[in-house]
Amino acid sequence: MTYLKETSPQEDTGDCIYSYTTGTLMMNLKRSGLVDVDILAEQMDGLRHKQIEAGIFSFDTFTCNGSDALTTVATELGEASRECSVWSTNLYLGLNRHPKVIESVVDAVRHFGTGCGTSAVSGGMNILHRKIENKISEWLGKEATMLFPTGYTANMGTLAALCAKDDHIIIDDESHASIRDGIKLSSARKWISFAHNSVEDLKSKLELARENCRGKVVVVVESAYSMSGDICPLADIVKLKESFDFLLFVDEAHSFGIYGDGGRGLCYHEGVTDKVDFITSTFSKATASLGGFVAMSRRYSSYFQWSANAYAFQACFTPSDAAAVLASLEIIETNPEVISVLHQKKDYMRGRLKKSGFDLRNSETPIIPIYINDTKKLLNICFELYKRGIFSVPVSYPMVPENDGRIRFIVNARHTYEQIDDTVDTLAQLAKKYDLF
Amino acid sequence: MTYLKETSPQEDTGDCIYSYTTGTLMMNLKRSGLVDVDILAEQMDGLRHKQIEAGIFSFDTFTCNGSDALTTVATELGEASRECSVWSTNLYLGLNRHPKVIESVVDAVRHFGTGCGTSAVSGGMNILHRKIENKISEWLGKEATMLFPTGYTANMGTLAALCAKDDHIIIDDESHASIRDGIKLSSARKWISFAHNSVEDLKSKLELARENCRGKVVVVVESAYSMSGDICPLADIVKLKESFDFLLFVDEAHSFGIYGDGGRGLCYHEGVTDKVDFITSTFSKATASLGGFVAMSRRYSSYFQWSANAYAFQACFTPSDAAAVLASLEIIETNPEVISVLHQKKDYMRGRLKKSGFDLRNSETPIIPIYINDTKKLLNICFELYKRGIFSVPVSYPMVPENDGRIRFIVNARHTYEQIDDTVDTLAQLAKKYDLF
Repeated sequence: MTYLKETSPQEDTGDCIYSYTTGTLMMNLKRSGLVDVDILAEQMDGLRHKQIEAGIFSFDTFTCNGSDALTTVATELGEASRECSVWSTNLYLGLNRHPKVIESVVDAVRHFGTGCGTSAVSGGMNILHRKIENKISEWLGKEATMLFPTGYTANMGTLAALCAKDDHIIIDDESHASIRDGIKLSSARKWISFAHNSVEDLKSKLELARENCRGKVVVVVESAYSMSGDICPLADIVKLKESFDFLLFVDEAHSFGIYGDGGRGLCYHEGVTDKVDFITSTFSKATASLGGFVAMSRRYSSYFQWSANAYAFQACFTPSDAAAVLASLEIIETNPEVISVLHQKKDYMRGRLKKSGFDLRNSETPIIPIYINDTKKLLNICFELYKRGIFSVPVSYPMVPENDGRIRFIVNARHTYEQIDDTVDTLAQLAKKYDLF
Repeated sequence: MTYLKETSPQEDTGDCIYSYTTGTLMMNLKRSGLVDVDILAEQMDGLRHKQIEAGIFSFDTFTCNGSDALTTVATELGEASRECSVWSTNLYLGLNRHPKVIESVVDAVRHFGTGCGTSAVSGGMNILHRKIENKISEWLGKEATMLFPTGYTANMGTLAALCAKDDHIIIDDESHASIRDGIKLSSARKWISFAHNSVEDLKSKLELARENCRGKVVVVVESAYSMSGDICPLADIVKLKESFDFLLFVDEAHSFGIYGDGGRGLCYHEGVTDKVDFITSTFSKATASLGGFVAMSRRYSSYFQWSANAYAFQACFTPSDAAAVLASLEIIETNPEVISVLHQKKDYMRGRLKKSGFDLRNSETPIIPIYINDTKKLLNICFELYKRGIFSVPVSYPMVPENDGRIRFIVNARHTYEQIDDTVDTLAQLAKKYDLF
C-alpha cells in the first residue's frame, strides 16, 4: 500500500492529484468531448500513477489474508502491508470465515472437483446447484429459480432478455450498473428513471407509460441501495399494481440473507413475494460466495434459458462456491442470531455516528455512508484513515452524483465494538480537522 | 434424467416435439414477428415440458458428483440417474480432479475464507488474485492483467468500454456471445462481421473501414472457435497490421492452457503477443475454475478500471477459485505432459471418427463437432447416446446457423481410450441407423 509513504496528505503537489479520482477525471474528459480511448487511458494512467506515488490511490488494493473485518491490506506484492479494520466489503454476516461454511467447501471440492467447465444448459451444474435453486424457490414461493455465475450477470442477462422493443422500462434513479447495462443491452428503446425511492414520481412515470407504451411496462427497483444504504418503499410500489399494469423486478442484493424471516429478504418481509414478478440477488454478499439468482414463474425460466446469454454462455459457479452458498443459507435459516448480531452492531455504529454529528441521511441498512462533498477532503480523509488502520475507498462521481462523494462504512457481524468505537472516534477527529460540519 | 423413460425415441407424438429445440422455437417465433415475451415464454415452456416428458430434453441436466469425463447425470432431484461419458465440458486438462489443485483449494479456503465480498476496486482481491495477474502478465509479456469474475464479462466489459461511437468494429462471423454483447453494450454504432476465419474477407472489411471510419478500427477474433473447433489464422491477421491501422483483440478461451509453450496460448505459439493489443481468456476451461482476464498495456488497465462496469461492479472470484487457477497454471507450466496427453487423445478420437466416415470439417482442437443437419435426427441421436451412457447436448439454431446442427465431443485428458472407442463405435452405429452418410 503506497499509503504507507509518509508524505503529508495535505501537501498538494500543485498538479491536481487531489482534485479527482481517476474515475471522475475520466468522466470530466469524456464530457469535454474527448472520445479517443487511447488518450483517455493515458491521462487516467498518468493521474493514477501520480496518486500511487503520493499515496492517495486506494483502488485495486488487495488483502494479504483474504477478506475480513480485520485484515492486512497492500498494493503491490512484496510491499509493506498494514493491518486494518476493513469497511468496504458486503460480507454482512461474516460467513466467509464461518467454520461450517469453510469445511463444507473443503468437502465439496474433494467430492465435486474444482470447476464445472461449461454452462448450465450443457450439463455444467451439479446437485449442489440444483439444491440451491430448489431452496430459493421454496424460500420465496416461486416456481423456478435460475442461477448465474455472478449477481451482475443475473440482473443483466434477465433484463436484457425481458425488455422488448416497445416496452417502457422505469428504474430507480440510484439503480446499480447491472440493471442499467441489462436494459442497455436489451432491445427496449425507451427507459426512464424515477426520483430515488419516490413512489409519487414512479406513479407519474407509470401514468405517462400508460398513455404511450405499446409494449409492456417493467419497473425495476432494488430493495436496499448500495450507495445510500436506504430501503425501497416496496409495499407502496407493489400497491401501484392495483392501478397500473406492470411487471415488477426487484434486486435484493443488499437485503437477501439479512432481512426478513430466516433471511428471505425484504419482499418476503413485506409479504409481497407473490406480487413481485422477478426477485434477484447476488451470492457474494450475505452468503459469502459468488453467483446470483433470479426467482420467477416457470415459463420465464424456459424463456431465459435461451434468451439470457449470460445464462447459456457462462460457466456455472464452481462446486466450492455452490457449497459456500448452501452452507450459508442453512446457517442463516437455522441461526437467527447471526442476523441479529449484525443489526445490533450496525444500530450501535449508526447511533454513535449520529451522536458525533454525522448526517447519515436516510441510510438504515448496514451500509453507512459518510458524506464528504469536497474531493480533496475525501481523498485526504481516506488516506488518514488508512494511516490509522481503517480501510475503505472514496466513492465519487460517476459512482455517485457530482459533489456528493462519500466513504461507505459497511458493518459486518465480525466487526468488534472496539473496531466500531475506534472508527467512529477517528472519523469524529477527522471531521473536526477537515471542518466537515 | 427423463431420458431414462423407455419410450421409443423415433415415435413422434405428432406435435412436433422433435422438430426444434426450445431455442430454435424461440427464434422462429421471434422471426415470425412475435414480440410478447409472455407468450414466447409460454410457448417455449410448453415445448420444454413436452420434451421432458418424451425424454428428449437434455438441457439443464446436472451431474450428481460434479463434472468429470465419467460421471452420473440427472435432471430432477430424487430421480434415477445414469453413469455417462460426458463430452460437453471444456475441462480440457481434467485439472478439476487433480489432487494438487483440489488441495490448494482446501488450503486457500481455510486461510482466505470463502468469498471476497466486493469488487477489485474496493479491496475485494487478495494476494492470490494479484499473483494470477502477475503470472499472466509475465507469461504473455504484457504490462498489465485485469481479472474478471467470468470470461464472458472479461470480454463484454472490456469491449463495451473500448469501442467508442465512431469506431468500426470487425468481428469473426462465429464470435462468441460475450463479444457480440460487449459491442452491443458499447457506444460503437458500426460493427460488421467477416466470413469465418477468412483473412481475405477481413482485409476487404479493413479496406472499407479505412475509407469510412472516423474513429479507430477494432478487430476481434478468437484464437480457436467453440462451435467448430477450428483455429484462427492469427499470424496472417497480425500481418494485416503492416498495411492497416487497427487494434487487435484476441479471445484465447479455447487455447489458453492447452496450446503454446507452457500453455501460454496460440498468440504466444505464433510469436505475436506483442502485436495483439488485448488477449483475453477464461479460467473455467483449461484451468478448471471460474473467472477471466484481459492482458494489455498498462494505460488501458487504468481506463478499464473505471469504464468496464463488469470490473468495478462485480465481486472478485473467490479465494477457492483463485487457488484453483494458480495451482492449474503451475501444473500446466511445469508438467508439459498434461497437455500432450490431451492432444494425443484428441488426435486419436479425430482419427477414428474420420475413419468411420464422419466429416469433421476444419476442426482441429479438442472440440470435435459431429454435424447432423436434420433436427429430428439430432435430438434422437442425443437421446440414443444418452441411453447408452454417452452424454452431450444438441447444438442447433441460434447457437449455430440453421440446418447446421451438431453434437460436440470435447476431449478431456481424463477421457480413457476405452471411452473414446466406445463413443466412436456408438456414433458409427447411429450414423448407419439414422442414415447420416
